[in-house]
Amino acid sequence: MRLAEAIEKIAPPDAAAEAEAQRWLDNLTKPPGSLGRLEELARRVAAIQGAVPPRLGRKIILVFAADHGVTAEGVSAYPQAVTAQMTYNFLAGGAAINALARAFAVDIEVIDAGVDHDFPPHDKLRALNIKRGTDNFTRGPAMTRAEAEASIDDGIRSVEEAVAKERPFLLGVGEMGIGNTTSAAAVLCALTGAASREVAGSGAGVDAAGWARKVAAIERGLALNRPDPNDALDVLAKVGGLEIGAMTGAILAAAALRVPLVLDGFIAGSAALLARGFSPRVTEFIFAAHLSAEKGHRAMLRELGLAPLLDLDMRLGEGTGACLAMGLIEAAVKLMREMATFESAGIAGKTT
Amino acid sequence: MRLAEAIEKIAPPDAAAEAEAQRWLDNLTKPPGSLGRLEELARRVAAIQGAVPPRLGRKIILVFAADHGVTAEGVSAYPQAVTAQMTYNFLAGGAAINALARAFAVDIEVIDAGVDHDFPPHDKLRALNIKRGTDNFTRGPAMTRAEAEASIDDGIRSVEEAVAKERPFLLGVGEMGIGNTTSAAAVLCALTGAASREVAGSGAGVDAAGWARKVAAIERGLALNRPDPNDALDVLAKVGGLEIGAMTGAILAAAALRVPLVLDGFIAGSAALLARGFSPRVTEFIFAAHLSAEKGHRAMLRELGLAPLLDLDMRLGEGTGACLAMGLIEAAVKLMREMATFESAGIAGKTT
Repeated sequence: MRLAEAIEKIAPPDAAAEAEAQRWLDNLTKPPGSLGRLEELARRVAAIQGAVPPRLGRKIILVFAADHGVTAEGVSAYPQAVTAQMTYNFLAGGAAINALARAFAVDIEVIDAGVDHDFPPHDKLRALNIKRGTDNFTRGPAMTRAEAEASIDDGIRSVEEAVAKERPFLLGVGEMGIGNTTSAAAVLCALTGAASREVAGSGAGVDAAGWARKVAAIERGLALNRPDPNDALDVLAKVGGLEIGAMTGAILAAAALRVPLVLDGFIAGSAALLARGFSPRVTEFIFAAHLSAEKGHRAMLRELGLAPLLDLDMRLGEGTGACLAMGLIEAAVKLMREMATFESAGIAGKTT
Repeated sequence: MRLAEAIEKIAPPDAAAEAEAQRWLDNLTKPPGSLGRLEELARRVAAIQGAVPPRLGRKIILVFAADHGVTAEGVSAYPQAVTAQMTYNFLAGGAAINALARAFAVDIEVIDAGVDHDFPPHDKLRALNIKRGTDNFTRGPAMTRAEAEASIDDGIRSVEEAVAKERPFLLGVGEMGIGNTTSAAAVLCALTGAASREVAGSGAGVDAAGWARKVAAIERGLALNRPDPNDALDVLAKVGGLEIGAMTGAILAAAALRVPLVLDGFIAGSAALLARGFSPRVTEFIFAAHLSAEKGHRAMLRELGLAPLLDLDMRLGEGTGACLAMGLIEAAVKLMREMATFESAGIAGKTT
């Protein structure tokens, strides 16, 4: 499946299943609606799967790593080499996402979507070979249109392979890439017209001078490249990133294959905005894991029309927020599948 | 251990352990502070346990059930018999808290703190025998001072026994009791001077007329009994509940025994307010699981000085919010225990 086919395949969630799921929920031994957003989660999973009650299964997060040419502008608190170093950390199991994945029984797949490093073969690493990081978008486009489309296709293929191996109940996307909050903010600005100083945050913790360089770099990149807000592929190519492209593909593929997609934070959110540019309906398949502490994330989620499940002041990426949210979504489905009904438990109903 | 001894035993959390925990967190392979409130959770558990890194272990929620004489005033959407029926549902494993407890590997203990029903012996049910539900507080005090103190002592004993069996990593309190949002709101009003119409919510879903009866019942109860806001035992006895008293004892015991206490929603919160009346320091041992949809909960948590971890529009009680929060707290401790350090993973530090 390539980009055009994925877009073509995205059909609406099953409204009849959603209504049936709510009737099911209303028969369980609790006051109607008292499980709040957990009921919404179970209902939405039912609608996406077209199954009442929803099915459980394995949970997987794809962690896409890539480098960003714009780091040359001094926009990040960490050197570019950290992208490759953290990728090794993911493979060794020592990163935050590894610990959380173990805690919530989530599978992790690490994908080199364009790191400026030659990794030796590793059974847990899937290597794409489009480009060793983007070019510096303050000097020209981050990548060609063909490279951008290839990154999307690679993201689609990553999901197809994960689904072929064992269809997941939930699929999450996370990322690692020094400089990528700069690219994500540039994508947000390009698509929505937001001012860079309003949505650029401090990323992994850049200081005030670095933040000013980041804002300026985004402004220069947008002025130089003039990405077309009505052409998501143009935006991705000119100011995006290889992991952002791959996540865009992964999000579209999840919707096409009707797997509920759990969105991590700010960078994953920029991919969701791009995916929506290709298929407006894609947000109906997305669960926004959390509100990140990154400055522009609130505006981004508002733009996507998604309400975050968690608000824990996190700003790490990697899929860490998605992992926590998966625990909540899985719990919601288990509630729906396992609770007794008023009738089966012999419990009286409402009197008023 | 009885009430006076529990109060006596509560010492401050270990500030040195908390500082050491933050230093530990700052060495892990993530930007400092980027795990947000998860870092706060791990740090606070370290301070309570006096251990860096914090220890893991079993998680347990004590679910206290009791009846409320004030239900005679038509304050609830459900008949009083549902308290006993739901208690059977807990024992049979069909309630929301059972499904969530299985999802998050939490042990559940069900405690009859004063249900108006004779339960046959059951290995999962611990029966206290103070009183078969409170008296109607619109006609006189809900219970005597001696009964209130006995309910607290029973809650303390419940925790002591759970700790003696196998010291828990986290201890939660939840409840079931038709009419108990009325009692909890009355406790909140008595202790803080809040107006009943400002803090009484719709509980399990009472209609507008029932809500008006609820507000009026609280006002009559307060006017008739005149609970002393500076005497928590007086407030508990006059307008509280047997499960509220038992949870008050459980919260004090957890602090005395230095077990992190995970607080569920509105009714558990009223017990935390009472516990604070006995020992102001007790809130330092409490983690507020969630912001409930019940009207007065936001004001209650503000009064307690506790920031909720979740905000999912839930209003079910039973310990359901506490169960979800335990997943987050456990994940925070696992992150702290399992993540690599910058040094061990060979990762470069910040440049700016």
